Amino acid sequence: MGNRKRIDDAKMSDEIVAENGLINRRTLLRNALFTAGIAAASGGVVRADDSAGANAPEWMKTPGRPFSGYGVPSKWQEKVQRIFTIAPGRAGTGVSRTPLHLLEGTITPAGLHFERHHNGVPDIDPAKHELFIHGMVKQPLAFSLEALMRYPMETHVYFVECAGNSGAFSSPQPPQVTSGELNGLLSCSEWTGVRLSVLLAEAGIAKDAKWIIAEGADAAAMSRSIPVEKCMDDAMIAMYQNGEAIRPEQGFPMRLLVPGFEGNMNVKWLRRLNVVDAPVDARDETSHYTELMPSGKARQFMFLQGAKSAIVKPSFGMTMKGPGLYEISGLAWSGAGRISKVEVSADGGKSWAVAALTEPVLPKALTRFRMPWQWDGRPSTLMSRATDEKGGTQPTRAAWIGEYAPGQGYHFNGVQSWSIEADGAVKNVYA
Amino acid sequence: MGNRKRIDDAKMSDEIVAENGLINRRTLLRNALFTAGIAAASGGVVRADDSAGANAPEWMKTPGRPFSGYGVPSKWQEKVQRIFTIAPGRAGTGVSRTPLHLLEGTITPAGLHFERHHNGVPDIDPAKHELFIHGMVKQPLAFSLEALMRYPMETHVYFVECAGNSGAFSSPQPPQVTSGELNGLLSCSEWTGVRLSVLLAEAGIAKDAKWIIAEGADAAAMSRSIPVEKCMDDAMIAMYQNGEAIRPEQGFPMRLLVPGFEGNMNVKWLRRLNVVDAPVDARDETSHYTELMPSGKARQFMFLQGAKSAIVKPSFGMTMKGPGLYEISGLAWSGAGRISKVEVSADGGKSWAVAALTEPVLPKALTRFRMPWQWDGRPSTLMSRATDEKGGTQPTRAAWIGEYAPGQGYHFNGVQSWSIEADGAVKNVYA
Repeated sequence: MGNRKRIDDAKMSDEIVAENGLINRRTLLRNALFTAGIAAASGGVVRADDSAGANAPEWMKTPGRPFSGYGVPSKWQEKVQRIFTIAPGRAGTGVSRTPLHLLEGTITPAGLHFERHHNGVPDIDPAKHELFIHGMVKQPLAFSLEALMRYPMETHVYFVECAGNSGAFSSPQPPQVTSGELNGLLSCSEWTGVRLSVLLAEAGIAKDAKWIIAEGADAAAMSRSIPVEKCMDDAMIAMYQNGEAIRPEQGFPMRLLVPGFEGNMNVKWLRRLNVVDAPVDARDETSHYTELMPSGKARQFMFLQGAKSAIVKPSFGMTMKGPGLYEISGLAWSGAGRISKVEVSADGGKSWAVAALTEPVLPKALTRFRMPWQWDGRPSTLMSRATDEKGGTQPTRAAWIGEYAPGQGYHFNGVQSWSIEADGAVKNVYA
Repeated sequence: MGNRKRIDDAKMSDEIVAENGLINRRTLLRNALFTAGIAAASGGVVRADDSAGANAPEWMKTPGRPFSGYGVPSKWQEKVQRIFTIAPGRAGTGVSRTPLHLLEGTITPAGLHFERHHNGVPDIDPAKHELFIHGMVKQPLAFSLEALMRYPMETHVYFVECAGNSGAFSSPQPPQVTSGELNGLLSCSEWTGVRLSVLLAEAGIAKDAKWIIAEGADAAAMSRSIPVEKCMDDAMIAMYQNGEAIRPEQGFPMRLLVPGFEGNMNVKWLRRLNVVDAPVDARDETSHYTELMPSGKARQFMFLQGAKSAIVKPSFGMTMKGPGLYEISGLAWSGAGRISKVEVSADGGKSWAVAALTEPVLPKALTRFRMPWQWDGRPSTLMSRATDEKGGTQPTRAAWIGEYAPGQGYHFNGVQSWSIEADGAVKNVYA
C-alpha cells in the first residue's frame, strides 16, 4: 500500500454496520481508499503536453477503425459469452446461461439473455406470422405483426427466470462453478409491447373463462396454461427488447410476458392464445416444471418466482487481492413485486447489514445491491438475503431442501453463500 | 373495417383532450379498437388441435437453429442500422446516427448507439490502458482498469446527445428525412462506473482548481474543458453500458460521462484528467461546438442540452393506413433533469394535450411519451413540446432561429412538426 493512507481502525469502529468488516457506504465514499493496484503517477508519465508525444500509447498514433452499422463488443471481451448445457445429440434442446459474474448494472445485453429452447430457435418470417386469440371469446381474432403494431404500447423492465434456475443447489455437494453457471437462467430487459388485457377485451372473453393456453410457433409447439387473472393483469405481448425488435432467441417477432412467473410460461414465438375453462396439462407442465414433494406427489402450477438474491462480486472464479477494501455487489429479484431490502452477512449469517439498492427499484425487475467490505484477510463467509414488498424472503438452503423430495430442483430461492479462503480464493459453500 | 365496431362519435366527445382527434388514453384502453389490418380468425385456421397439423407454419415442422454464445438481431431486421455521415476521404471522421424511428422504449441497443468520432475508433488493449489524474492535485494518480474496478460502482440511465443533433432544422427548407437522420445523434444507456468525485477526493483536488481537461486516447486526442463543479457533481467514469463492458465506439475500456452536457464532453477512451485553473481552449471547443450569434461573436462553453422532444411514430418515411385510431409516440429529454410534461398537438399548435409518460421518468434520461389519436383522414400537423422539472421548455423553431446567426446548428431544441397529408404521407414541415 506504500504511500497510500488507510482508514483508521478507531475511526472505522463508528461506521461498522455488521461484523467482519461490513461498513457504511457514505463513510466509504467520504474517507476510504480502494488503493490496491493504484500507482502514484510519476511526473514523467503525465505531462500536460504529451498527447502527441513519445509517451502516447500506440493506438493514439494511427487513425482508428471506421464506423459500423451495427456494433459488437470489443474483441477483448470475447470470453463474455453465454454458457451452454445442451442435450446430447439435440443441438436445439437445452439451455444457455447469462454470465452474470462478468456483467454489471441491471439490464442484460440482449446478446447475452439466457436461452431455454425445447427444439431450437425457429426462423420466423414476421410478414407471415399471426397471433390467434380463440376459444371462449365472442369473436376469434388474428393479428398480423403490422396490426399489433397499431395498438397502444407499454414499456416495462422485467426479469425472466427459468423455474430450474439455481437447481444445482439441490445437489448434495456445493458445485464449484461460477455465479453465471449457478444462477444465469436469469436475465432482465426493457420490454415494449401491447397489454394482453386490451386484446382479450377486444376479442370479448367469456365470463366463465379460467385459463388461456399459450402456444409457441417453434418445432416443440411449447405450450403452457396461464390463469386468466394473470392474463388480465400485467401480462403483455412483447415485440421489442431493450429498444429494438425482440431477438430470435427471445421470441422474434413476439412473445408472451407474464411478469414474475416462471420462465417457460413467457411463451416465445407466440402463435396462439386459446381461452378455455381448464388447464390443458401440456407436456411442459406435467413432464417438467412441477415440484416433487417428500410424499412422492408433485405440486403443479407453482408459477411465482420467489424473493431471491445472489452475490456476483466476489464469486467463484475470482481471487481476492489481499486484505483491503472491496465492494460486494449482487442482484436481487422477486416475482411478487419490488425488492424492499437486501441484507448482507460477512460472518456466515451471524450478523447482517442492509445493502444499498440501485435506484430506481422496479417491480419484477433485477435490482443491483452494493455493500462495502473491509476484508481483514481471514477466512470469511459471505451471504445475501432479499426481502420483497409483499414480505417474501429467502429461507436457508437447509430449510428449502427440507420442503421437497431429494433432487427436486425447481424454484430454489434459498440463501447462497461464498466462502473467502485465506489465499483469496472464492468457493461455493452450504453454510 | 367490416364487422369491427368503431368508437361512437357522440361518446367520444366526452373524451377529447385536444382538437383534431387527440383522445384520453384510459378511454382508449377501455373502449377503442385499433382494428386496421385485424382479421376475424376463421374456425378453420385455429383449431385447438392443429399445432402439429397441416396448417402449422413451415418453421414448426423442422427443428430450429441451435444455441449461440452472443446473439444478434433477426436477419429480418437487417435494415435496422446506424445511419452514416462521414467526411470525404476520412473513414473515421464523422457521425453515425441511431435509427430512432425504427426503435421503441427508452434504452438504445448498444449496437445502435450513435457515434461521433474525430479520428476513428482506437483498438485499446485494456490491460495497457491507464487513467491519469494530475495537475492541481496533492497526489497525481494512475489507475489501471483493474484498479478502477475495485472502487464502489454506481448505475444510472443517462442519454448522450451530440451538440450538433437536429442541426438540420437550421436549414431554410425542412429536410425530408427520417426522424433518425434528424435527431439520431441521441442515445440512452444504462451506465455503470465510478463517481468521479470519489477519485478526485482521493487525488486531493486543490481548492482553487476551476476546470478539468479531459483527454481521450484516440488518434485525435479529443479534449474538452469541464468545469470542476460538474466533475464534483454527477460526473462518472463509465466502464459498463447496458450491463456489459462499454462498447469500443462508446469508449472501451472507459469514458467520461457528464450527464446532460453536450455529447463530446463525455470524452471516450478517457486517458487523462488534468486539473487546472482555466479552460484549455482545445480545438474542439473553439473550432467546433460554439454558438455563432447574430453579432458575429461566438458563445463558448454552452454545455447543457435543453428540454427537447421528437415524435417518432408517425414520422417521415411512414405512411398512415387510412382514417382510424393511431398511437402517437416519441421521445423527450432534458440535460437539466426529469421531464415533467410533454404536450402534443394535432392541429399545428392551436390546441395541446398532455401525453402519457412511460414510468419511471428518470433525470437526464430519454422518456417515452404516448398519445392516442383518432385521425379523421384530413391533412393535420403533429407537434410535441417537452417541459423539464426546472421549467425549461422548447421554443418555436422561428424563435430559436432568431437567437443565432444564420446556419448556426448547435443546440437546436425548437418544436418539431410533422405534416400528415391526405394520402397518409408524413412530411417534415416548419409550422
